[in-house]
Amino acid sequence: MTYCVAMLLDTGLVFLSDSRTSAGVDQISTFRKTTVFQNPGERVIVLQSAGNLAITQAVTSILQERLASPDAGASLLTCASLFEAARLAGDALREIHRRDATVLKEFGVEFNASLIVGGQIRGEAPRLFCLYAAGNFIEATADTTYFQIGESKYGKPILDRVIRRSSSLTEGVKCALVSMDSTIRSNLAVGLPLDLVIVRRDGYSVARHIGIDTDNEYFHDLRSLWSEALREAFAHLPEPDWLRQALG
Amino acid sequence: MTYCVAMLLDTGLVFLSDSRTSAGVDQISTFRKTTVFQNPGERVIVLQSAGNLAITQAVTSILQERLASPDAGASLLTCASLFEAARLAGDALREIHRRDATVLKEFGVEFNASLIVGGQIRGEAPRLFCLYAAGNFIEATADTTYFQIGESKYGKPILDRVIRRSSSLTEGVKCALVSMDSTIRSNLAVGLPLDLVIVRRDGYSVARHIGIDTDNEYFHDLRSLWSEALREAFAHLPEPDWLRQALG
Repeated sequence: MTYCVAMLLDTGLVFLSDSRTSAGVDQISTFRKTTVFQNPGERVIVLQSAGNLAITQAVTSILQERLASPDAGASLLTCASLFEAARLAGDALREIHRRDATVLKEFGVEFNASLIVGGQIRGEAPRLFCLYAAGNFIEATADTTYFQIGESKYGKPILDRVIRRSSSLTEGVKCALVSMDSTIRSNLAVGLPLDLVIVRRDGYSVARHIGIDTDNEYFHDLRSLWSEALREAFAHLPEPDWLRQALG
Repeated sequence: MTYCVAMLLDTGLVFLSDSRTSAGVDQISTFRKTTVFQNPGERVIVLQSAGNLAITQAVTSILQERLASPDAGASLLTCASLFEAARLAGDALREIHRRDATVLKEFGVEFNASLIVGGQIRGEAPRLFCLYAAGNFIEATADTTYFQIGESKYGKPILDRVIRRSSSLTEGVKCALVSMDSTIRSNLAVGLPLDLVIVRRDGYSVARHIGIDTDNEYFHDLRSLWSEALREAFAHLPEPDWLRQALG
């Protein structure tokens, strides 16, 4: 299982992903789910992936091979728009589907993969896309502040409550980490280290890309502070009168 | 979709369920998912159900018909233990499975149902069981404080953080309502009115059974207070130094 979240804010983008991959509870490994493609000063594109690792790794490989073979047409470093970048990623997914889907089905394995593609190319505003296994995709609009892929439900309520387009990048990072914390607590198959990528609007490069592991003091503190704050907030909720009457 | 949560605490049990049933977004109805069987002073058994409504209603009907036909063997009002009660509910599920599963499969409908059975029979401690579609079940042990069925993920993090066996019934009720709030916000197919049932240890009857609808002031206030408290707690989380440096 994987959990990835990406936010499109007024001042830039925040990407956070875990790195745990499991094929059953006794086969847990660490694989990065985030890949950065950039030509600093001109473009930055971040790719996150969830689902069958063989599929998503193949997608990333195809997109990377494309960079080295200019004859093959546009690549993530030459395409004219983020929309075009999302199409290229979708095409890569479809290429794997054509190659693998039938065999996977014979083995009872679902063709399960989803991607997030976001960033900014000079001449455009920052954009964010979410791709389905079929290679089709949706784009974040003015009403959409984030996309999630993988194990998305545990970490969704806090995003809905806190994040707006006008949230700062710092708020975005904090909220993504809290959302990830809720997910890690509830699903053993989502785990550290985390990959955090921050892209500032009109920066055309990664402002910060850090790996967050168990020795990251800030994340460690954030987790316990948040737990404490939640419990305290909970303790301060009022009790209903009808309950006091019923329970004496 | 449905969301039901039941807690087994030192001082009793708390059951909360929504009442929305959907067969597609244009066919939304209200059906209670909670049924109480009690012989006050001697036993109280609460049944919650999630999944295909035709299946779970049939289970409830079978269990209720059983009460009226003493020749048919033990019923929920005569069985010797809660374990026996869970078995009776499991048997009812299997009876529907024998009757309906093949036909449902022909129509491409999964045999999808899960139940929670909990309460107390004189001579036993309070007990809580969670039943799967196959009619098999697990029981809450000293380490288990709650079971969820239906749309369980959105509302799980707060339960994990707050509820212990030693939590009071009031804390249980508050936490169940907060957990339900997170679920309702994230899944349109979970909605009011809610069914809340409180059973006190050694009370052998329902201490309180209330329906919570949009006009319930307490739940309304709880929802906005909780949102506010979460946002405030979030705003007070510290910012990491490395982030301040990165974002200037």
